[in-house]
Amino acid sequence: MALGTDYARQDCSLARALEVVGERWSLLILRDAFYGVRRFGDFLAHLDIPRAVLTTRLAALTEAGVLRKEAYQQSPPRYDYVLTDAGLGLWPPLHGLLRWGGEYAVEGEPTRTFHHAECGTRLDMTGGCPHCALAQVPPAGVEMRTRVLPGRPVRSDPVTAAIAAPHRLLRPLRGAAGEDAFAGADDPGNS
Amino acid sequence: MALGTDYARQDCSLARALEVVGERWSLLILRDAFYGVRRFGDFLAHLDIPRAVLTTRLAALTEAGVLRKEAYQQSPPRYDYVLTDAGLGLWPPLHGLLRWGGEYAVEGEPTRTFHHAECGTRLDMTGGCPHCALAQVPPAGVEMRTRVLPGRPVRSDPVTAAIAAPHRLLRPLRGAAGEDAFAGADDPGNS
Repeated sequence: MALGTDYARQDCSLARALEVVGERWSLLILRDAFYGVRRFGDFLAHLDIPRAVLTTRLAALTEAGVLRKEAYQQSPPRYDYVLTDAGLGLWPPLHGLLRWGGEYAVEGEPTRTFHHAECGTRLDMTGGCPHCALAQVPPAGVEMRTRVLPGRPVRSDPVTAAIAAPHRLLRPLRGAAGEDAFAGADDPGNS
Repeated sequence: MALGTDYARQDCSLARALEVVGERWSLLILRDAFYGVRRFGDFLAHLDIPRAVLTTRLAALTEAGVLRKEAYQQSPPRYDYVLTDAGLGLWPPLHGLLRWGGEYAVEGEPTRTFHHAECGTRLDMTGGCPHCALAQVPPAGVEMRTRVLPGRPVRSDPVTAAIAAPHRLLRPLRGAAGEDAFAGADDPGNS
């Protein structure tokens, strides 16, 4: 891991967690993975992240066991990046930060809201469904809804368009940015 | 805010949350604030953080409305840094990251565990009390317990010693590192 040596003397589960996901792009990459993004080119199109940074971050998250690579094409080799069980375990804190940001760091209504797919009720602050008295809705049971709000920027990339319709988290958005549109020699999937 | 311009095109509550708490020291400072740390010198003693970085981070968290300054001495002026309501709202994702780190990023048992103070039951993964069927225990109702584990480093600073005994979150540890032991011209409380 490139990060974390500053925290070496902090014997704390949070410090260890931050070694994996504390780098500022990592949580946005993982957010996209929950939205269904799996491919290098799709992350690139959606995140405005420099290619080299995306390459490094995907490799680090894979090495840390939060994402795993699944080949979807042999020649040339191309990979999906899929959340592992450890990665799926990040849903509660990720949802918590999303809700906190919507509550305290964003003015007005949030663009995206998360609902229990089965009943349509918006998740509560801690990711449960108050209607069904569920303490925690697993990400595969969560529906994301996106609204266009006046005065708020709307991205024009194809991944943003693909996730604009209500859809279940984790449902793969395969190659929304076009097959191999962005894959290249610096896709760590190729190495 | 010094952070966040890279995220400007991400219309997302998470991106906004990360502008406030995504910098890698910020969540460790906030963790300490939940543990009861309030004073510049105590954060400094416990975090191995460079003075200048701590000064910048405390100022940024105060400006963002997550911490507020409360004078505890007039001459020279000295301040406690106290969690605001917005700061207290970070407990669910912070606890989630702590639990995730303990589950997936730390080998062996976690050093610190969090319990419902009223009944002693360890909080579940999402910060609730399974014994009392509480979906969420507010931080003031949480007791932190610290264990010394074989082969794990034990810090010798006075703040670590002060939080080693079981205690409620948020209960102030005033000046554990000694009155004014570390306060100085670069304590933003002095400006």
